[in-house]
Amino acid sequence: MILTVTLNAALDVTYHVPALVPGATHRTGPATERAGGKGVNVARALHALGHDVLVTGFAGGDTGRAIRADLAAAGIREAFAEPSVPARRTVTVVSEEDGSATGFYEPGPRLSIEDWTWFTGRFHDLASRAAVVVLSGSLPPGLPDHAYAQLIGACPAPAILDTSGPPLLEGAAAGPHVVKPNAEELAVTGEPDPLAAAHRLRAHGADAVVASRGADGLVAVTGKGCWRAAVPEPVRGNPTGAGDACVAALAAGLAAGTPWPDLLADAVALSAAAVARPLAGDVDLDTYRRLAPRVSVEELDADPDR
Amino acid sequence: MILTVTLNAALDVTYHVPALVPGATHRTGPATERAGGKGVNVARALHALGHDVLVTGFAGGDTGRAIRADLAAAGIREAFAEPSVPARRTVTVVSEEDGSATGFYEPGPRLSIEDWTWFTGRFHDLASRAAVVVLSGSLPPGLPDHAYAQLIGACPAPAILDTSGPPLLEGAAAGPHVVKPNAEELAVTGEPDPLAAAHRLRAHGADAVVASRGADGLVAVTGKGCWRAAVPEPVRGNPTGAGDACVAALAAGLAAGTPWPDLLADAVALSAAAVARPLAGDVDLDTYRRLAPRVSVEELDADPDR
Repeated sequence: MILTVTLNAALDVTYHVPALVPGATHRTGPATERAGGKGVNVARALHALGHDVLVTGFAGGDTGRAIRADLAAAGIREAFAEPSVPARRTVTVVSEEDGSATGFYEPGPRLSIEDWTWFTGRFHDLASRAAVVVLSGSLPPGLPDHAYAQLIGACPAPAILDTSGPPLLEGAAAGPHVVKPNAEELAVTGEPDPLAAAHRLRAHGADAVVASRGADGLVAVTGKGCWRAAVPEPVRGNPTGAGDACVAALAAGLAAGTPWPDLLADAVALSAAAVARPLAGDVDLDTYRRLAPRVSVEELDADPDR
Repeated sequence: MILTVTLNAALDVTYHVPALVPGATHRTGPATERAGGKGVNVARALHALGHDVLVTGFAGGDTGRAIRADLAAAGIREAFAEPSVPARRTVTVVSEEDGSATGFYEPGPRLSIEDWTWFTGRFHDLASRAAVVVLSGSLPPGLPDHAYAQLIGACPAPAILDTSGPPLLEGAAAGPHVVKPNAEELAVTGEPDPLAAAHRLRAHGADAVVASRGADGLVAVTGKGCWRAAVPEPVRGNPTGAGDACVAALAAGLAAGTPWPDLLADAVALSAAAVARPLAGDVDLDTYRRLAPRVSVEELDADPDR
C-alpha cells in the first residue's frame, strides 16, 4: 500500500462564467466539487494505475465530509483525521471567453495541538503498513515548518516529500528518500542553476532530489548517479497536477524497486499524461503508455562542481 | 409574527484579496460565511428593530445547515424546509485595492415536486399564524414563474412580494397587499416612467406598488393615494440590502396598521440605515432614528394619465 498524506486537503470548487468581469455579479452554472490537494492528486493517479493507495491528512467539517464522500465515490480509500475545524476550499472561476482560470485559495484550518498529536500517532500506524509514504503540499496555518520533518523522522517506510519553502528545507534535513521540488521551489536553495540547486538540496539530507522542470522534464540527483529525463514530444493541456503525477510514478517505482533511469522515464511520461487531462489528479493512460518507452534519459556528470 | 419566505436562500461566502487579478491564483484570508438571500436580510432588519420574525424557505444540505446555524447564532427563528439538494452559495470577492466586490452566484437547488408540495403545506400553516408574510428574491431553478402567485393565492395573511421578471408579474396578479420593485424591476411593465410603471403594475392586481429608486427614495401607488418619499440627506455606503430594509419597514408598518405617509417615511429611513452598514441585512439604528422624522413625503396626483 502507498500512503499519501495531505495535511491541507481541499474541497476544490469550480465555477464557469461566460467572462470574468471584476466588480460585476456573475450568475454561474452549477458548482462542481472535487476532493483536492496535492496528495489527493497523487492518490488519484496511483489509483488510475491500479495501485493500492490510502489517503490521509486532515479533512474536517462539512468540507471534509464532502472531500471524503468524493474519494469514496472514486473508489479511493481514505483514513483522514476529522478535526472540528473544516477543511479549506479552493474556488476556481473558469472564464469560457478565454479559458483562463482564476483561483481563490483559503488558508486552511487552524489545527489544535491535540489534532496534531492525535494525527502523528495515526500516521505512524498507517505508515508502518505502507511500502512508500508520500507527503505533499502546503501546511495548514499554525503547523510549524518542521511538521514534515517530524513525520519523516518517525516514518517506518521510505518517504517522498513534495512541498516548498522552509518546510521543504526542514523536511529534506530529516532524510526522506526523495524530495520533488519544481524549478520555482528549488530557488529556496539560493542557487539559480537547477542541477546545482538539486545537489545543494540533496546536501541538506535527502537521499535523492528529483526536480521537475515543466516541459523540460526532470533532473535527478541521487546516490547512484544523476540524470536528465525529457518527454519525446510536447503535450498540450493543463500543467496543474503534472508534478503530482510525477510523484505518483516515483512512489510506484520506489515501491517496486525500479532502477532510477526507468523510474524517471515513467515519471516524465505520467507527468505528460496529467497535462493531457483538464482536471488535476487525472491522467491519460493512453498518453502515458505511448510516451513511457520513448522518454530520453541522459546520465549526467555526478560532480556538482563540474 | 412576521413571516419571511426565501425560496432561494444562500450561504454568502466572502473572500478578501489584496487585488483581484483575472487568471491568477489568490491566497485569500479566511472565508466569512453568513446566511443570505433577500428574505433573510428582511428578517435581520426586523429582528434588529425588535420584531417577532420567522424565516422559511428552502435550506438543504451542508450549506443549508450552515445557513440555519448562522441564523440561530443571530437569534433569528427559522422554519426552513430541508430538501436533500443543498442550498446555493454566493461567493463574493472583495478587493482591498479599490473596495470593489465581484460576485459569483450559484443558480440554487433543483427542487423536486415533492419538496414543493411539502413546502406549500408548511407555508400555509406558518402563514396562518403570521400578521404579514414577505416573499423575497429569485426562484430556484425549476420552480415555475407562478410559484409566488400560488403561495399568495393561498396566503391567509397580507403578503408583500419583492421579486423580478415574470414571477413579479404573475405574483402581482395574485393580489398581494404590496409589491416592491426597484427601478430596474419596474421595466418588466414596458413603461419607462417610474410612476406610470407603478400604476401599470398595480393594474396587474397588487393592492399597492412601492417602487424603490435608490437615492431618489420611493414612489408609492396605493388605493388610498400616491406618494413620493425621499431621504433628507445623502447616505454613503453599500446599497445592497437597502431594498430589503425597505421591505422590512413596509412589513412592520403593515402589521401595525401605520398610515401610508408614515409607513413610507419609515421605509425610506430604514433603507438609508441599511446603506450605512457594509453587510446586507444589517441596519444602523442611529441613522434610522435620526432620519425617520425628517423624510419628506409628498402626495402626488393619483391620476396615472396626468
